[in-house]
Amino acid sequence: MRASETELSTIDGLVRVENAPVGEVLRSVKENTKDSYTHEEVYGDYCTLQGYVDAPPRDVYEYLADMKSQEEYTYSVRDLEPVDDTGLYVGWDRLSGNTRIYVRIEANPQALTVDYHAAWDQGEDLWMIYLFRVVDARTVLKRPGSVILWTNCHHPYYEKNPYPELAPSPDRPWVGDFWREFYAGHKVELENIKAIMEHRHHRGIPITPSAASGA
Amino acid sequence: MRASETELSTIDGLVRVENAPVGEVLRSVKENTKDSYTHEEVYGDYCTLQGYVDAPPRDVYEYLADMKSQEEYTYSVRDLEPVDDTGLYVGWDRLSGNTRIYVRIEANPQALTVDYHAAWDQGEDLWMIYLFRVVDARTVLKRPGSVILWTNCHHPYYEKNPYPELAPSPDRPWVGDFWREFYAGHKVELENIKAIMEHRHHRGIPITPSAASGA
Repeated sequence: MRASETELSTIDGLVRVENAPVGEVLRSVKENTKDSYTHEEVYGDYCTLQGYVDAPPRDVYEYLADMKSQEEYTYSVRDLEPVDDTGLYVGWDRLSGNTRIYVRIEANPQALTVDYHAAWDQGEDLWMIYLFRVVDARTVLKRPGSVILWTNCHHPYYEKNPYPELAPSPDRPWVGDFWREFYAGHKVELENIKAIMEHRHHRGIPITPSAASGA
Repeated sequence: MRASETELSTIDGLVRVENAPVGEVLRSVKENTKDSYTHEEVYGDYCTLQGYVDAPPRDVYEYLADMKSQEEYTYSVRDLEPVDDTGLYVGWDRLSGNTRIYVRIEANPQALTVDYHAAWDQGEDLWMIYLFRVVDARTVLKRPGSVILWTNCHHPYYEKNPYPELAPSPDRPWVGDFWREFYAGHKVELENIKAIMEHRHHRGIPITPSAASGA
């Protein structure tokens, strides 16, 4: 027995084979596997999408990690320009008229994670975080290509704009008003990513827009 | 206009503000946001869990990246021992009597990703992949602590055991028979992780079992 078994036995609520018989746990797990789930249950606190793309993981990673790719695959982020030399960019979110969107990308080429730290109206407090991870589909699905994982967490600022005075107009809708629609909205953009990358991969066109445009 | 606009206009199915009016897209996104989703829709191809843990991200990462932690937080993986000096371990999965489970962990301390590459019965083809990622909750939820993201993909071997001759007995249930229960089953283990880490963090006990046992 491991040294920590004594300690573990004092922690309330642990479900381990030592204290919960297999038959009982399987029955309880089956009961908790429902036929359907409400939108709030699945997408209330976190909004995760997953999707398969028939293009190599390294290419998909580089595409997502390239600032200008958003001008292609997002529905409405356009005309990104550097704010300074720290990697902070500003563009327009055409979803809401004259809204400025600030974005910084933090990517890890070993883990193939790509995080967009973004915000509407100001670039000091980048609280809207888009967590991407690219996974080699050969390992997880036994097929060539990539799996994209994409999670947003329900940050409290979605509920209430922390800087209302910076909105271009008082009646401009807030990004958080769309939280309930994030899954369906991001699905549109994930399908855009898939369409663009497969189009290019199947034709041998360089996948990242900076490479394609020579920028 | 960017150099690639002409190319993008030739890709079927793209939904971008240039070709799809905001009102129309918002209407369609609202229609695709359903009140409920079937189990198959949400957990058929991928099984993702997310959870908040009140313990520092670096500690949570180190806990998940430590091979022996599975003996604490999993329901039934026990008695892991190194197979060789490459990081491959073998233990017992007590869920199914005398089943051997092989595990290798690949972790990235910068990105805080932790992947378990595992398989029942053999250690040559580690096809069961548990993708974890730890995120600093201060950035994504504006509170101290960690968010754990955990995804399994529906690898074809879940549908059919590729090495049935290696099962300890012909009537041993296959791990893939439980795919439908993965969400509820992994939820039990995510709750175990949360309970163990919060117990230790709140009491100043070293979080990883190797540290706690002096191993």
